[in-house]
Amino acid sequence: MAKLYFRYGAMNSGKSTALLQAAYNYEERGQQVLLAKPGVDAKGDRDIVSRLGVTRPVHFLIGEDADVLELFFAERRALVEATGSPVACLLIDEAQFLTPWQVNDLLRIAVVQDVPVLAYGIRTDFRTEAFPGSARLLEVAHSLEELKTICRCGRKALFNARRIGDQYVFDGQQVAIDTLNDVGYESLCAACYLAESGGVLDGEAVTVSAPLGPDVDFS
Amino acid sequence: MAKLYFRYGAMNSGKSTALLQAAYNYEERGQQVLLAKPGVDAKGDRDIVSRLGVTRPVHFLIGEDADVLELFFAERRALVEATGSPVACLLIDEAQFLTPWQVNDLLRIAVVQDVPVLAYGIRTDFRTEAFPGSARLLEVAHSLEELKTICRCGRKALFNARRIGDQYVFDGQQVAIDTLNDVGYESLCAACYLAESGGVLDGEAVTVSAPLGPDVDFS
Amino acid sequence: MAKLYFRYGAMNSGKSTALLQAAYNYEERGQQVLLAKPGVDAKGDRDIVSRLGVTRPVHFLIGEDADVLELFFAERRALVEATGSPVACLLIDEAQFLTPWQVNDLLRIAVVQDVPVLAYGIRTDFRTEAFPGSARLLEVAHSLEELKTICRCGRKALFNARRIGDQYVFDGQQVAIDTLNDVGYESLCAACYLAESGGVLDGEAVTVSAPLGPDVDFS
Amino acid sequence: MAKLYFRYGAMNSGKSTALLQAAYNYEERGQQVLLAKPGVDAKGDRDIVSRLGVTRPVHFLIGEDADVLELFFAERRALVEATGSPVACLLIDEAQFLTPWQVNDLLRIAVVQDVPVLAYGIRTDFRTEAFPGSARLLEVAHSLEELKTICRCGRKALFNARRIGDQYVFDGQQVAIDTLNDVGYESLCAACYLAESGGVLDGEAVTVSAPLGPDVDFS
Repeated sequence: MAKLYFRYGAMNSGKSTALLQAAYNYEERGQQVLLAKPGVDAKGDRDIVSRLGVTRPVHFLIGEDADVLELFFAERRALVEATGSPVACLLIDEAQFLTPWQVNDLLRIAVVQDVPVLAYGIRTDFRTEAFPGSARLLEVAHSLEELKTICRCGRKALFNARRIGDQYVFDGQQVAIDTLNDVGYESLCAACYLAESGGVLDGEAVTVSAPLGPDVDFS
Repeated sequence: MAKLYFRYGAMNSGKSTALLQAAYNYEERGQQVLLAKPGVDAKGDRDIVSRLGVTRPVHFLIGEDADVLELFFAERRALVEATGSPVACLLIDEAQFLTPWQVNDLLRIAVVQDVPVLAYGIRTDFRTEAFPGSARLLEVAHSLEELKTICRCGRKALFNARRIGDQYVFDGQQVAIDTLNDVGYESLCAACYLAESGGVLDGEAVTVSAPLGPDVDFS
Repeated sequence: MAKLYFRYGAMNSGKSTALLQAAYNYEERGQQVLLAKPGVDAKGDRDIVSRLGVTRPVHFLIGEDADVLELFFAERRALVEATGSPVACLLIDEAQFLTPWQVNDLLRIAVVQDVPVLAYGIRTDFRTEAFPGSARLLEVAHSLEELKTICRCGRKALFNARRIGDQYVFDGQQVAIDTLNDVGYESLCAACYLAESGGVLDGEAVTVSAPLGPDVDFS
Repeated sequence: MAKLYFRYGAMNSGKSTALLQAAYNYEERGQQVLLAKPGVDAKGDRDIVSRLGVTRPVHFLIGEDADVLELFFAERRALVEATGSPVACLLIDEAQFLTPWQVNDLLRIAVVQDVPVLAYGIRTDFRTEAFPGSARLLEVAHSLEELKTICRCGRKALFNARRIGDQYVFDGQQVAIDTLNDVGYESLCAACYLAESGGVLDGEAVTVSAPLGPDVDFS
């Protein structure tokens, strides 16, 4: 029985490179793969774009209301007819933007269709809340595998802070594409994130109001 | 800087045993640990109970509205005064029952207080949805580590199916303690779960209505 | 196809507890397991002894020259005849003391007999060299999974230092059972180990003889 | 304290791509890295070559008798002088070809110099024996992380079989570069490897000579 893998990481951890390498590994052995990503992801249209310089189009986009099972069956049929060989793997980029029920279909593809599904995506947004697709993948994936990158301080990055111009912001819409409106993102470890947010996580401030003595300092 | 670990698993994967072993390892080296669990967990009152036969009381219960930082500071102070040595680790059993803001405090304890936090808990409920504490731990823990157990078919168990008497049920309240009302749970792999639920995941049925031909069969 | 797992850790990381928990999980589901350990392991005769207080005899000991495949077939036949149900898993304690060709048979049992093999053992000896069984398991196991414990300094322990009386020693025979001759072991992180050994690893001292300036200090 | 990571995988699992992505991630944040590889690796001279099409020269080669600590100090000094910023990471490609004492120095660089070392390499040779560098990395690395690729059968590849022309061979020298003499390699899972080798592992045949009945079949 095949499995659903969620390979998650902070922004700029090399998720698209890892996806393209996995696709390459399959195809080098003569095995077909299907590549897809959510339609809402605006970067590079139909392309999966690696910061290392490798680019490749997906087989299909997944619209917000799309039925992933139906899409998968149609695309698989087309690829099998074109190549004469079966589909060995389904690879999804930017999986954080899927809906929960689309992720349910990824699990069904793995378990019932016996096709491994590798879903790559960001774990949490700039407020440290999971995206809808990530939240569901964290619940149901057979295997949770982290792709790591580093914070400015050298530790492993955990969160994705948002900046508008030079200013970190901790309120706003979940999705604000980084090429627009002077919005930027920075992958930070938890310590650097809490230092910038003044201890706020997910809109919630530190709740201890009593004097705490020397053993706590959130400044 | 210390880390927050989420060691998750299906029911009966040995989470309490692993927690008690970790506590033992610290104490054997002369290092103090604090043990806690949510107050809502009815099993065994203040005890952490391992199915292997080992039992041990927690230092404190975490009520539904409790401020975890405040509790931690008070309990740490008491333990340091009683033993004369610092607290090397905070261990939480049944962490799935914490609230999201209580999990935020676990992250702050690790990152700002520099005390490692090991949180053990179940990933998802009988409908495959994360518990509130698990959902937040899956978002913010530095490290997600799976404790494994097996399905009746020999595969790794992923989900926790609920039975009332002999009947699997897929609707109802999230928490229904297993010693009451003839409710039982069974850890199942995704294939066995989908077989019992007729393809339903999280209350959502399979959405493909067109005839699919030989390549799909959810029966 | 089943897999061979090597669950390794420093001394006192809870390997026997984890093994006994895994056995319990199988048997609770009505699935039979076989337990074994090398005959050279003197502790507790035929027992697997957990520091948490749980103890249980193995089904068979593996002598130094024993053929593991032959033993496995005979013991499996006996257990199947006694219980009427198949063997779902083979669990090995103290696997570091197996010979490399005995580990080869563990791989064959997993791959050809389709029975999962969980081998628990120490990674390296007091000089930081792998034991014969560990060296082979590190080469061929499908999955390498670390069981963690802590150093006296709070970091993860990596190595097992040997003491005779109060003195750390870095030369001697690979196996010196800890209950005899005033020999003791302490799990240490790499920094604490190098501090005690004066930079020596595996009998080899630091090789840089030129003056190095402020950026190196092995004292 | 920094750590030594061993990221191992079968041939063609994307190790060089992963290394180049890690280097890119550091440099994108304005952090310097040092790249190195053993001198014995003939492919691409001083280049790290990714099958995805990305190529980049190393800062230094490590000769068979080279003192890695000395090389590291000299190269670090040069890079710091050239760039004015410290070295945040040392990345090693083809680490399987290092000597054990060179790996010891990698551990010292991580632990004593506090510079993370990411070593990428193949776990085992065509006979399923570890290379000298891999054997030592499997003993002393803080973290063992697998990079996966697939077998022709769709399972995870574990071993690297050698072919001369169309013929699988299981005897010969450990290193035979694949562009020469019609030598080729194929990453195989354990089942496919054992099928090709007739059950032989590491030069050792199956030792069970008694008639085994239906439950064993190595053909």
